[in-house]
Amino acid sequence: MNESYFDEFEAPNRLLLGAGPCTVHPRVLRAMTQPVVGHLDPLFFQIMDDVCEMLRRVFHTENYVTMPISATGTGAMETACVNILERGDTAIVCRNGYFGVRLADIAERCGANTVMVDSPWGEPADLNALEDALKANPGTKMVGLVHAETSTGAITPLQHAIDMAHRYGALVVVDAVTSLGSHEVRVDDWDIDVCYSASQKCLGAPPGLAPISFGERAMDAINKRSTRVESFYFNLQGVAEYWNETQRVYHHTSPITMTYAMRESLRMMMEEGIDQRHARHAHVAAGLRAGLAAMGLELTTAEDYQLNPITVVKSPEGIDEAAVRGRLLNDYNIEVSGGLGEFRNRVWRIGMMGEGARESNVLSVLSALEMILADSGYEVAFGASVAAAQRSFANNGIAS
Amino acid sequence: MNESYFDEFEAPNRLLLGAGPCTVHPRVLRAMTQPVVGHLDPLFFQIMDDVCEMLRRVFHTENYVTMPISATGTGAMETACVNILERGDTAIVCRNGYFGVRLADIAERCGANTVMVDSPWGEPADLNALEDALKANPGTKMVGLVHAETSTGAITPLQHAIDMAHRYGALVVVDAVTSLGSHEVRVDDWDIDVCYSASQKCLGAPPGLAPISFGERAMDAINKRSTRVESFYFNLQGVAEYWNETQRVYHHTSPITMTYAMRESLRMMMEEGIDQRHARHAHVAAGLRAGLAAMGLELTTAEDYQLNPITVVKSPEGIDEAAVRGRLLNDYNIEVSGGLGEFRNRVWRIGMMGEGARESNVLSVLSALEMILADSGYEVAFGASVAAAQRSFANNGIAS
Repeated sequence: MNESYFDEFEAPNRLLLGAGPCTVHPRVLRAMTQPVVGHLDPLFFQIMDDVCEMLRRVFHTENYVTMPISATGTGAMETACVNILERGDTAIVCRNGYFGVRLADIAERCGANTVMVDSPWGEPADLNALEDALKANPGTKMVGLVHAETSTGAITPLQHAIDMAHRYGALVVVDAVTSLGSHEVRVDDWDIDVCYSASQKCLGAPPGLAPISFGERAMDAINKRSTRVESFYFNLQGVAEYWNETQRVYHHTSPITMTYAMRESLRMMMEEGIDQRHARHAHVAAGLRAGLAAMGLELTTAEDYQLNPITVVKSPEGIDEAAVRGRLLNDYNIEVSGGLGEFRNRVWRIGMMGEGARESNVLSVLSALEMILADSGYEVAFGASVAAAQRSFANNGIAS
Repeated sequence: MNESYFDEFEAPNRLLLGAGPCTVHPRVLRAMTQPVVGHLDPLFFQIMDDVCEMLRRVFHTENYVTMPISATGTGAMETACVNILERGDTAIVCRNGYFGVRLADIAERCGANTVMVDSPWGEPADLNALEDALKANPGTKMVGLVHAETSTGAITPLQHAIDMAHRYGALVVVDAVTSLGSHEVRVDDWDIDVCYSASQKCLGAPPGLAPISFGERAMDAINKRSTRVESFYFNLQGVAEYWNETQRVYHHTSPITMTYAMRESLRMMMEEGIDQRHARHAHVAAGLRAGLAAMGLELTTAEDYQLNPITVVKSPEGIDEAAVRGRLLNDYNIEVSGGLGEFRNRVWRIGMMGEGARESNVLSVLSALEMILADSGYEVAFGASVAAAQRSFANNGIAS
């Protein structure tokens, strides 16, 4: 029988440079030691209002219905679909990676006739194919797009796709799990109908909450449903009545401590400035890419569509990718992620997200990777990748 | 524009004596300041195994599929229903309070033909009416029972109901949100098919996780489904593949920090002893009830069916119940809960749960209530209720 729970758990200081969670700043961890208050305590209502207001700034929206869902990013994905879709509706989902596959899966579970628009992993969504699908499926209720495909490292520029979907009368659901806080996500200017993210990536909090924002067009569609939403937990009307400052109707017991953490992580983003945070992610990612190129490693995504918070690198022929990750973790205390789905056993996913997006972390992971790859028989010029990253940082000139 | 987020949040030391969340021990809060590790880190797998093993002890089960859902108690309720029920199945739900109403609502959203067995709020479920409903609905797939109705303070003895449901071939889903950790819940001995709870009540962690356990009969039914589970997030097969120590397939990013908290709160329960914790809750509740009786206040539930973790008191005629709660909170820093549903504006719900179930808290809330009621024109003999509680504690003789 397992009795390891007799010991106090002492977590090591892992450098979390994978696909999330990312390393959380001590200020955010400390916020979680604040005494728990009740979910109907007026003091907590103020915390809720603060979080909503800061989330609106991060999403660049005035949408009133903007708040965190009491679940992880996948829960927000389900919240979007289960509220927008009714059985028999048509949904078109652009699939260019693992999370597009997941979004389509959820739309299907909601009973939607789900049309897939596939493009190769590593590429952005195929907008010509999307237009064909919209033409072929008049009355499509929802188009689902993944802004930042965490599984491939590709970003899909959204404006053209959103306008197209709207021309065909469809609502647009955007997965911004990995982009929010590192790339610009402008819900109002771009006219996104539903946009969601997650706490543990570029927002810098632990995993467990998932911000979401619903625009007017989406709220109209929800109000006009002819059937009940099939989930109680993710039923937007119930959730929103609790978050609405004039209602505060109990829906479920809010994760108080996680909400403290999210407030503090958002405060840190406000202090830094949203644009500055985006610039920091771009700066750090450029250095990482320069270093990886100097090591002769290839990325899965073309330069024009590279995400900043996550860089997906092909593991070289003949190298056991899992063994390299194991040594990074065990010998260097650095976590990077492996591949999902099609990319399983073929890539490393290096995340530079939130608090983790720092020059020093780029230099750490590159130098460790040089050591391990050299030891695995891959030809490495010691220091070359670090030097390339340093030159990138020096030329860019923004300290981080 | 709201800019209160510029300030650091300083939570007061509320004494949380409502329906949950309850006051969390500093050891549990401190556990959340441990550095975040990845959800696929072998170190986290050990944390997961520890949590599962301790949950099995608390549930008194050897069920392999026993783990926390990444949501609050309502999410676990939905997990039970959405995995067991398929559209067109029949579910019978015993409704003797707000959470029975919620369970029936969720069963309906899952597309089940849902039969309600109602009994008056404050009473246990009506087992004669349940038998009538089982007879009238052959082939019923699931019977839903709320062990501890947090809204009314009533406990429903389960063994007879479970045996009856099984005689009619139905699976039994038990809501133990408020009872687990304060009353005996014996999943294996009583032959419960699905049992769930929540982190923030008698388990003593912050809100945000919900333990659940599935027995063999329930797993068989899930494996034999002819349709897909309509939720991805709560799809048991996916969740269980991540928690299964031989699989560890990514399903969603686990709420790492909350899992640290749950492990520490369960460790504290192991240290105290499960039976001792139950005895503490009984001891403390007896003192509270003696004090309330001495104040001339009536409970909503007859003596035989009184829950220990929560005591539901009728607010006296002519007293503004919300004003009394407001003064408790603002003048004494004590939170008690108001009524839900039928009991709205008619009761106070005083919780003595987990770390909050202490003699000292009983004395605090009684003496504060004496002050406020006296000031509201209700006749109070100062000290009488405190004395009654003290005598109860002294006679019982167990320190807490």
